[in-house]
Amino acid sequence: MSYFTNINKIKFEGPKSKNPFSFKYYDPQRIINGQKMEDLLRFSVAYWHTFTADGSDPFGAGTMQRPWNHLTGMDLAKARVEASFEFYEKLDVPFFCFHDSDVAPEGNTLGETYKNLDVIVEMIKEYMKTSKTKLLWNTANMFTHPRYVNGAATSNNADVFAYSAAKVKKGLEIAKELGAINYVFWGGREGYDTLMNTDMKLEQDNLARFFHMAVDYAKEIGFDGQFLIEPKPKEPTKHQYDFDVATGLAFLQANGLEKQFKFNIEANHATLAGHTFEHELRVARINGMLGSVDANQGDKLIGWDTDEFPTDLYSTTLAMYEILKNGGLGKGGLNFDAKVRRGSFDVEDLFHAHIAGMDSFAIGTLVANKLIEDKVFESFIEDRYSSFTYGIGKEIVENKASFHTLEAYALNLGDIQNKSGREERLKSVLNQYLLEAISEFATV
Amino acid sequence: MSYFTNINKIKFEGPKSKNPFSFKYYDPQRIINGQKMEDLLRFSVAYWHTFTADGSDPFGAGTMQRPWNHLTGMDLAKARVEASFEFYEKLDVPFFCFHDSDVAPEGNTLGETYKNLDVIVEMIKEYMKTSKTKLLWNTANMFTHPRYVNGAATSNNADVFAYSAAKVKKGLEIAKELGAINYVFWGGREGYDTLMNTDMKLEQDNLARFFHMAVDYAKEIGFDGQFLIEPKPKEPTKHQYDFDVATGLAFLQANGLEKQFKFNIEANHATLAGHTFEHELRVARINGMLGSVDANQGDKLIGWDTDEFPTDLYSTTLAMYEILKNGGLGKGGLNFDAKVRRGSFDVEDLFHAHIAGMDSFAIGTLVANKLIEDKVFESFIEDRYSSFTYGIGKEIVENKASFHTLEAYALNLGDIQNKSGREERLKSVLNQYLLEAISEFATV
Amino acid sequence: MSYFTNINKIKFEGPKSKNPFSFKYYDPQRIINGQKMEDLLRFSVAYWHTFTADGSDPFGAGTMQRPWNHLTGMDLAKARVEASFEFYEKLDVPFFCFHDSDVAPEGNTLGETYKNLDVIVEMIKEYMKTSKTKLLWNTANMFTHPRYVNGAATSNNADVFAYSAAKVKKGLEIAKELGAINYVFWGGREGYDTLMNTDMKLEQDNLARFFHMAVDYAKEIGFDGQFLIEPKPKEPTKHQYDFDVATGLAFLQANGLEKQFKFNIEANHATLAGHTFEHELRVARINGMLGSVDANQGDKLIGWDTDEFPTDLYSTTLAMYEILKNGGLGKGGLNFDAKVRRGSFDVEDLFHAHIAGMDSFAIGTLVANKLIEDKVFESFIEDRYSSFTYGIGKEIVENKASFHTLEAYALNLGDIQNKSGREERLKSVLNQYLLEAISEFATV
Amino acid sequence: MSYFTNINKIKFEGPKSKNPFSFKYYDPQRIINGQKMEDLLRFSVAYWHTFTADGSDPFGAGTMQRPWNHLTGMDLAKARVEASFEFYEKLDVPFFCFHDSDVAPEGNTLGETYKNLDVIVEMIKEYMKTSKTKLLWNTANMFTHPRYVNGAATSNNADVFAYSAAKVKKGLEIAKELGAINYVFWGGREGYDTLMNTDMKLEQDNLARFFHMAVDYAKEIGFDGQFLIEPKPKEPTKHQYDFDVATGLAFLQANGLEKQFKFNIEANHATLAGHTFEHELRVARINGMLGSVDANQGDKLIGWDTDEFPTDLYSTTLAMYEILKNGGLGKGGLNFDAKVRRGSFDVEDLFHAHIAGMDSFAIGTLVANKLIEDKVFESFIEDRYSSFTYGIGKEIVENKASFHTLEAYALNLGDIQNKSGREERLKSVLNQYLLEAISEFATV
Repeated sequence: MSYFTNINKIKFEGPKSKNPFSFKYYDPQRIINGQKMEDLLRFSVAYWHTFTADGSDPFGAGTMQRPWNHLTGMDLAKARVEASFEFYEKLDVPFFCFHDSDVAPEGNTLGETYKNLDVIVEMIKEYMKTSKTKLLWNTANMFTHPRYVNGAATSNNADVFAYSAAKVKKGLEIAKELGAINYVFWGGREGYDTLMNTDMKLEQDNLARFFHMAVDYAKEIGFDGQFLIEPKPKEPTKHQYDFDVATGLAFLQANGLEKQFKFNIEANHATLAGHTFEHELRVARINGMLGSVDANQGDKLIGWDTDEFPTDLYSTTLAMYEILKNGGLGKGGLNFDAKVRRGSFDVEDLFHAHIAGMDSFAIGTLVANKLIEDKVFESFIEDRYSSFTYGIGKEIVENKASFHTLEAYALNLGDIQNKSGREERLKSVLNQYLLEAISEFATV
Repeated sequence: MSYFTNINKIKFEGPKSKNPFSFKYYDPQRIINGQKMEDLLRFSVAYWHTFTADGSDPFGAGTMQRPWNHLTGMDLAKARVEASFEFYEKLDVPFFCFHDSDVAPEGNTLGETYKNLDVIVEMIKEYMKTSKTKLLWNTANMFTHPRYVNGAATSNNADVFAYSAAKVKKGLEIAKELGAINYVFWGGREGYDTLMNTDMKLEQDNLARFFHMAVDYAKEIGFDGQFLIEPKPKEPTKHQYDFDVATGLAFLQANGLEKQFKFNIEANHATLAGHTFEHELRVARINGMLGSVDANQGDKLIGWDTDEFPTDLYSTTLAMYEILKNGGLGKGGLNFDAKVRRGSFDVEDLFHAHIAGMDSFAIGTLVANKLIEDKVFESFIEDRYSSFTYGIGKEIVENKASFHTLEAYALNLGDIQNKSGREERLKSVLNQYLLEAISEFATV
Repeated sequence: MSYFTNINKIKFEGPKSKNPFSFKYYDPQRIINGQKMEDLLRFSVAYWHTFTADGSDPFGAGTMQRPWNHLTGMDLAKARVEASFEFYEKLDVPFFCFHDSDVAPEGNTLGETYKNLDVIVEMIKEYMKTSKTKLLWNTANMFTHPRYVNGAATSNNADVFAYSAAKVKKGLEIAKELGAINYVFWGGREGYDTLMNTDMKLEQDNLARFFHMAVDYAKEIGFDGQFLIEPKPKEPTKHQYDFDVATGLAFLQANGLEKQFKFNIEANHATLAGHTFEHELRVARINGMLGSVDANQGDKLIGWDTDEFPTDLYSTTLAMYEILKNGGLGKGGLNFDAKVRRGSFDVEDLFHAHIAGMDSFAIGTLVANKLIEDKVFESFIEDRYSSFTYGIGKEIVENKASFHTLEAYALNLGDIQNKSGREERLKSVLNQYLLEAISEFATV
Repeated sequence: MSYFTNINKIKFEGPKSKNPFSFKYYDPQRIINGQKMEDLLRFSVAYWHTFTADGSDPFGAGTMQRPWNHLTGMDLAKARVEASFEFYEKLDVPFFCFHDSDVAPEGNTLGETYKNLDVIVEMIKEYMKTSKTKLLWNTANMFTHPRYVNGAATSNNADVFAYSAAKVKKGLEIAKELGAINYVFWGGREGYDTLMNTDMKLEQDNLARFFHMAVDYAKEIGFDGQFLIEPKPKEPTKHQYDFDVATGLAFLQANGLEKQFKFNIEANHATLAGHTFEHELRVARINGMLGSVDANQGDKLIGWDTDEFPTDLYSTTLAMYEILKNGGLGKGGLNFDAKVRRGSFDVEDLFHAHIAGMDSFAIGTLVANKLIEDKVFESFIEDRYSSFTYGIGKEIVENKASFHTLEAYALNLGDIQNKSGREERLKSVLNQYLLEAISEFATV
């Protein structure tokens, strides 16, 4: 059966198209810098937001009108799998991601949950045989059930730690079974609400133990996907342990895990932490830790995670700039960890939203690529830092300077001349590239 | 001459005193947990806010009415030194802190600046001979002069790096000369405003080089004070590199500097980063990195660093709880990096403000000490995490568990029982301790 | 039957009591400024948080362990009514508040919903006959059901407006039936997410129409309770129309409704709007619009409404200061629009939390009352503004000055002398009063 | 003499131009909707940021390299006037704005200040005779001098009130003399830092008195410019009285001033208040209170007023949408209340920055105009709210409905059908218009 009967396969129709169900800028086969857009962008659909979520919020019930709303239990789970592959195909997207509990209902016992998962994983595997869509990553939901009220690997309750371990064990087996390219740890409730009842050290030590066990087990079963940590500063707990990339890095380094993990960076989590999206990407990039991306956007006037579909072209451009400078995302992808607004409750909105996101990243890619081709920022930066390429600057970067040689140099300096940072001019150029890189595209 | 003629030495008069120029709760000689309050709290006056600042803000000129306002240049600098030691004595405070430029005016050349500093340092040294007040730390101002427009050690200009190195070299020599117990690096303008013109990697590598040179030079001259980094997330740059403790830790670890540095934690910087003050203290504490404290408070409804004198008793209590659990501050102290409000422009307000801060930390100490004596939080936490002291929990913390043993355990678990976190009750108890620990004190 | 079998009636035991199930500071019969504490504070239990909510959040299912969890439908509704009156009695609280949907399940039709309500209202009425607990206010839930996805009175759908009108009509009838002292309008989803699809003017005009109809109908049926608007700046919509007190006032004035409404001010909504709780109380007070209070607290480091039980004694003191200066709350009360943390899932926590809130407001009342008795702020303010009591200042406030007379005066002025605002000293005094007003109480 | 010798008159060169000193999109003579771009946009240069400010911030000294830096006093003031008119001409901008203290130094007495102002105003008047550039508005600086430490019209000191009155009296006379089209009141320090020392009611009453006197005096001297209030929520005080448009409106209505004033809306002040720029414009527009605009942008991750030149094309588009729907700005204009970054210290940066802002608003105008021409949002909104054009909806908006008729209607309703808000689709369309409206322009 078909779940999206009124919607045909979404095709590239170019920027002048008025057809809402077409890509205006995302042209999967178009070559950017020697690579197909499709292979470069590695878009992924987030199962939870698109097939599982119902639009409920803390003040209201679900609003989403879905063709599977009349079903329950395993029937519902199966219908969602069917619908999901129809959706991937119609959207022409190469990847998807899921939590275990998105795809199969939790049973009354862990064993029953395993069985439900086995049925659904088998079904997904069958679909994947004839689908081009691959599993970018999977993960285990360790935050929804009341047992995780105080976290999973950082719970104060050893039973919960054990239960969570079993869940991730199963998750890694599923990952191997379905050929997942990554396995993600999002913090869930790994954090705290008040220090008055919290043993932060024990909780973080346990988290490290948990990660080491996961690494060991993956090795044991031959799962060679990339492990990813997804930072978030707050929500649901007041203080999430994986606050941002730097915090995650400090934790990994302190626990000897920095070789085994990279980061899955989410735009809205970055802004909740007080950073721009591109900041988090840059920090990960220059530390060799950029793994994958949860592509969405937040609203900086709003203090919670809104998980909006990404449409801000400044953000997509500056994000793609970091990604292109990173040589692409490697095993990672651009996963739309984004939800349609509660008021966008039609099935059509699922397509509108993904098209919006894919077109926005396509535009960002075109603009960023052009900026890099023309060395717009690179040339400026090269000139700006040129004093480190000769003389005392060269000595500094070659580790030949000391406070003695630098003081001797400084004592003989006259007035120091600085160079303007030209921020306003650079913003003008960015706007010009945004408008003109695309106008070029329009005429192709 | 006297600068604060109308004000006598501030003495402890107890909680019923109506005399504004007395301590109500800070009783330097009172023994808390085997230590004099004075030795435990290690209060320090910040030279810049108290003697140098004039109350100007981005929208207005200075307002502070000071007995040295008619002076300029070295005369002004000398008057401030005289006034500062009178102030320390009248306030009965064991430490002070300064930036080089707080105490001596910058000359037309670096050499002239050195000379000005030498004169003033000699004068300070002379005063210190007969004063009980010691130098908690000094540092170099590398942010006010236009040459630092793009940072100091992270400037794009090698000349600025060299100039800054000379300043810190001199700073370390002064530290040694005056017996400073610590040397602090506050980020100043080490950060960026836009990634479009910034080479973050080079800047951070240079910062690490700078720190290594400082460590080497300190060793060379035999300065054995503790090096401290002071995190701040933003202001003056949009993104300061030393965002918070975790970020600083990641940087130090990545650059092999984690043994040479600890952190100087400022309350208002913590809240600007989205953390509580006690969070930053806890993170530093459990990583063995708690060095010293810049004692102040911010206003969480305000998005800039207000540097208010600390009067929030919840904050002082929870901060002192971390400090007492740390076994005290070691070489560090509680430095009032706080400024009187622009509207509190009388000389008297300098005393009111310090008394407010000292009394508030004294109260916090009394309450935190009582909480620890009665094991209020400890007992609760011990019980809350008791599942890690036996059985599967014990195996986990002793690193004897694996995903195999944990799964086997989890498959046999029935419904998991969690324990209430009792946050509301704990907050009640905290209030009760706040009011009662002090009422006990009142009757002593 | 009893729902809280292990808990006896909560009694005042004084500040030294270690019994968690006692009031330490709230002494209902104690006379403050000629009034019983009970009559002054007018505490109210919020039905929704205490009896209806299950502890779910956007990332997880309900955690609350309640003796009525096994029930559904009208059986559940009835059990909650029974439990609620047992709770009011054991807590000894004079008021409660509810939304229609808190007390009775929505039926399949509006008519069925009415019937459910009629049954429960009758039952409540019966309980009220023998209970001292009265209905502070009721309201209609116009945000949970999907029909309110775009608001109620500001919906783009006229059917929703009509449906909402019917709900409020019924709500007013219930208010009259149960002798409610106020009727509250909280904004629910009256706001917008994006201006791109919003006719703000029509929506606000419709809201005014809705309020006028409510006023007319109340008059018609002889309901003489006070109408209250409860401001909130955001959540669930990105922009709620009733942003804060000033915004609500502008709206009421522009629509000729300022005589018919006052404000119900919530602490956490104030801070989400960037104001302190006491700011919103002050603005309402000086405009004669302070109606009632939703007593809770937020966390200013968190960007969503946390609705915590109020335990911050600064906040309760400064709030009670405004309330006492207002001559009390009149028809209003202190309604605990607060929820136990998701991790505080025991029934006992409901008592701990309310005790925490009641004790905290009792302390705030004692301290504020003492501050007012001693004219601490009043005397300072009187002196600070004394220049408006004579000469040119008197002319100004008596509206006798003009730009001509003021210029003539100013041209003859020498240097203007200002007075220090003494903020640090005032904060010290506030701390001293907080600790000492209570230590007095302790000895009574 | 010339101050900007290396820079020629800035001309429109079209979107392909690589000349930094050209407009790419702002074409003053281009007709948009029957009006020249120049007449529609009414750009204005802010004297203070462009000619007076030196780039100092709370952590550092001025950095700006200006050809008048060697001058002081009246010589400096005169040089700035000369430079300003050269700048206006080279930038081809129709308006400028100033505070009294931007253009002339304050004297030792008010009389001397008047004299300085008279000299400079005469000089400006002379320049204006041969310049096309007019005075959009002037205002009085009542916040920089220490006398305004506690505000001007809301000071606790009657002398300050009087002094401020004299300043505004003079300001109105200057406005008349120079043909100013508006007169602006920005809040300055009209607000408070702590309620503990503040008589909010007296302060706000005095503010109303001050405004009434200003209105009276303007009438007396025949100044018929528009009075404008400029809202800002915080900074420099913690709470500014003119928080946002709604707050200002409440104040004006309560004091019978709503006919005499409109609002001057600043983008960065809007976001500091938790609103979008377009929100504030919309609120002003639908209340008939949109007067003028301070065109800049903030950084929503930063908690202070950054006053950046506007380059965000989403913001300029949505702002211009409101302005075009308002039928333009009337007497108002787009004043660049924006400062070059502290690191953009070259004279060239002043041109880069203004060009960036003017081009960005030109693009916003083109896109907004096209959106309106095509009724993109209007059609969607018309359809979305269509239920109010017939039946029960029509009765509601025609004030013919009551709770009785609405309940009768609601009781007969079946399931209510809502329409999707299509937010994601609308954002896609906005992006398409942004890119395509301009690509059209490119080919003209």
